[in-house]
Amino acid sequence: MAKKKTTKRKAVSKMSGDASKRGTQTKTQSQITGLAESVIKHIDAKRNPTISVPTRTLSNVSFNKRKGIIEMGDATAERPFFDLGNARRFMQTMLMSSELLKLQEQHKTTSIRDMFYRCKHTVEGTKEETFTDQDESDPVIEDLEVTLKTLREELRIFANPDGTMVGPMTIRDSGDEIDLSRMGSGGWAVPSIVEPDVVQLVKSNAKFILLVEKAAIWGRFNEDRFWEKHKCMLITGRGQPPRGVRRLCFRMVNELKLPLYVLVDNDPWGYYIYSVVKQGSINLAFESARMAVPQARFIGMSSYDAAEFDIAPNLTLRLNDKDIARAKEIMHYPWFADRRWQREIKHMLKLGVKLELEALSNKDFSFIADAYVPQKLKKRKWLD
Amino acid sequence: MAKKKTTKRKAVSKMSGDASKRGTQTKTQSQITGLAESVIKHIDAKRNPTISVPTRTLSNVSFNKRKGIIEMGDATAERPFFDLGNARRFMQTMLMSSELLKLQEQHKTTSIRDMFYRCKHTVEGTKEETFTDQDESDPVIEDLEVTLKTLREELRIFANPDGTMVGPMTIRDSGDEIDLSRMGSGGWAVPSIVEPDVVQLVKSNAKFILLVEKAAIWGRFNEDRFWEKHKCMLITGRGQPPRGVRRLCFRMVNELKLPLYVLVDNDPWGYYIYSVVKQGSINLAFESARMAVPQARFIGMSSYDAAEFDIAPNLTLRLNDKDIARAKEIMHYPWFADRRWQREIKHMLKLGVKLELEALSNKDFSFIADAYVPQKLKKRKWLD
Repeated sequence: MAKKKTTKRKAVSKMSGDASKRGTQTKTQSQITGLAESVIKHIDAKRNPTISVPTRTLSNVSFNKRKGIIEMGDATAERPFFDLGNARRFMQTMLMSSELLKLQEQHKTTSIRDMFYRCKHTVEGTKEETFTDQDESDPVIEDLEVTLKTLREELRIFANPDGTMVGPMTIRDSGDEIDLSRMGSGGWAVPSIVEPDVVQLVKSNAKFILLVEKAAIWGRFNEDRFWEKHKCMLITGRGQPPRGVRRLCFRMVNELKLPLYVLVDNDPWGYYIYSVVKQGSINLAFESARMAVPQARFIGMSSYDAAEFDIAPNLTLRLNDKDIARAKEIMHYPWFADRRWQREIKHMLKLGVKLELEALSNKDFSFIADAYVPQKLKKRKWLD
Repeated sequence: MAKKKTTKRKAVSKMSGDASKRGTQTKTQSQITGLAESVIKHIDAKRNPTISVPTRTLSNVSFNKRKGIIEMGDATAERPFFDLGNARRFMQTMLMSSELLKLQEQHKTTSIRDMFYRCKHTVEGTKEETFTDQDESDPVIEDLEVTLKTLREELRIFANPDGTMVGPMTIRDSGDEIDLSRMGSGGWAVPSIVEPDVVQLVKSNAKFILLVEKAAIWGRFNEDRFWEKHKCMLITGRGQPPRGVRRLCFRMVNELKLPLYVLVDNDPWGYYIYSVVKQGSINLAFESARMAVPQARFIGMSSYDAAEFDIAPNLTLRLNDKDIARAKEIMHYPWFADRRWQREIKHMLKLGVKLELEALSNKDFSFIADAYVPQKLKKRKWLD
C-alpha cells in the first residue's frame, strides 16, 4: 500500500498514523503488545497468566472537584487464566487484543459489531464458540480500553458518528482540507474518530462554540447564519452528543481556547446532557480527562426563561413522574452541588414544568437565533 | 432582507426561492392561498366552508405495476366547518396553512415540532387550545401535504437529516460549492431538504450510487476509498433512509441517469428498506412519484450469500418469530411478487437465519469493499 502513492493515498496513510510502516510501533500497538508480553512473562515464570483490569463500577468512580471532572479510581480486578470463572473472559481478551492489533497494523478503523464478527469462531476440535453474541464482546473491548489506558478511538474502534458542524474554521480530515464556512445547509458530518492524526484544526476565526442539543435547532441557527454573524462554531450531537462530537469540542476548547456554550431543552435530560459534556459520564469515567470540558457553560434553557422571555404557560409541558425522579437524582450529583444549580433545578421542580427550545418559535421562527441566544450571551446569563 | 446583500446572503435567498421577493408567488404559496380562496368562495356563496382531504389509508393505496411504485388513490374525505366532528380540525388546518404561508414568505425552513409550538395558543376569550399536543398538529401537516399536492420539503418543513454522502461529485448547497470527493472521513451531512432550489448537482464523475444501510459500513467503504476506485457516490441513511437521502438518490438517478444499488442486511428489515427506496412506502404513498426509485437494484445481502461467500454457519443469526412473521408479510406485498424475490425470501425462511453485513468482516476487515460488492457488480448479481 505504501508503494503507489497518490496525494489522496497519502491522506489515507496520514489518517492511519504512519509509524508502523516505518518499522516502529505506534503507542497503541506498543500498549497492546505490552499486554501480551506481560502474559508471556507469567507463562515463562510458570505463574498463572493474569490480566489486571481496572474496575468499571460506580464504586470506583469519583468526582474530582478541583479538576471538575468525573474520574475512575485505582481498583482493579484480577483475571487469571487458570480459574473456571475467568478462563473464558481471559481467552476472549487475548483474542480481541490480537484482532485489535491487526486493525492497527492495517491502519483501519471499524465498529464494535465488526469486532464481534471478526472474533467469533468455533474453537478448533470443540463445539465452543469464542463469542456467542455481542453482549460478550463489547465488555471485552471496554476492558481493553481501561487496561491499556487508551481511548476507544486510539484502538481504532468507532462509535455512532452522529453529529454535524459548520462555522468559520478550516479543518483537515484525512488529508482533505475542508472549509466549514462553506458547507451549505447540510454541514460537515463529524466522524466518530477525530483524533489529531485524523482531524487537524488548520485555521479558525471562531470566538466560541455553540453546542446545540437538537438537529432541528441546529438547522435554524445554520439557516440564519448565526455562526457567521457571531463568529462561532455551530455543532450538534442530536441529543446526548456522541464521542466524536464531545472529543472535537474538547479539542477546540483546549487547542483554540474557545468557550463552549451548551444549548439544551429545560428538562432533567437537558441538564444531564450538559453535565456529560462538562464532567464526563459515570460509565466512561476513565475517558473524562480526554473528553470532558469542565469549562463548558450552560446557556439554556433555564427554568427561569419562561418568565424572562414571556413564554405563555400553555407552551410549557408538565413534568411527568420520570422527569421529577430524574431531577431529584441529578440534584444529588456532586457536580450539581453548586448553589446556583440547586436553585435552577429546584425552581424547575417548583414550577412543575419543562420547556423545549422549540417553544421559542411561538414568538418568531428565528427568535431563538436572533434574540434568545444573543441576549443571553450579551447579559452573560449562563450557568457553569 | 433583500436590500443589504452579501455574496452569502445571495446564497440564502437562492436557497429560499426568490419569487416572492419579486412580488410574485412561488408555486407553494399559490397552492396555500388557493386553498384559502376556495374556502372564502364557500363563505361568499353562503355555503358550509369545506376542505376535501385525500384519504391516507391503506384502502386508498395501490401498487402501480407499470410504473413500479406505490400510489395513492382518488378517495377524499370532506371536512366541513359547520360540523361538530370536523370544526376543530377545519380550524386547525386553516391556522396551520396560514403559518406555513408565513414560513414561505420568510424563506425559512423548520421542523414539525416547531410548527406545533408556532400554532399553539389559547383561542381568545375561551379556554380552548388550538392544539393540545403534537399528535394533533402532525396529521394536519400531512393533510395539507396531500391536499395541496406538495412535498413536505416544498412546504419548507424538514425531517430528521440523517444521512452522509461522499463521492466524485460537486454539488452546490445553499450557494456553497462543495467537492464531495474531499470530505475526509466525516462526509457531507445530507440535509433534509434537497430540492433543486437548495441543492444543485453541479458536476459528476460518478458511474453509480451505492446506498448502504449502516453508517459503520459506509465508514468502511469511505476509509477504503471505494468511491474513488469504483467512481461511485457513497451514501448512507442509517437504517431506513430519511426523506432527504431518498429524494437525493431520486434526483441523482433521474437527473444523472445513475444506477442505484442498495446494500442492506439479509433480513426482512433489509428487504423492506430496499422496497421503500424502490417503490415508496404505504403511508407516504402520495410522495412516491417524487421519492421512489423503481430502477433501484438490491445488491445484497442475499440469503444465498452465506453459501456463495463461504460464511461459517455460526456467523448467521437465527430468525426470531418477529422476523419470520415480517418475512411472510413482505412476501405477500405485490411488489415482491416477482419469482426471483419469492425465491429469495423463501430461501431465507428455509435456512431460518439472517445475515448481517458485518459477518463479512470475519474474513477480512475490508472483504465487503474489496471483494463482496465488486464481485457482485462484476457478475451482475443483483435483484431488481
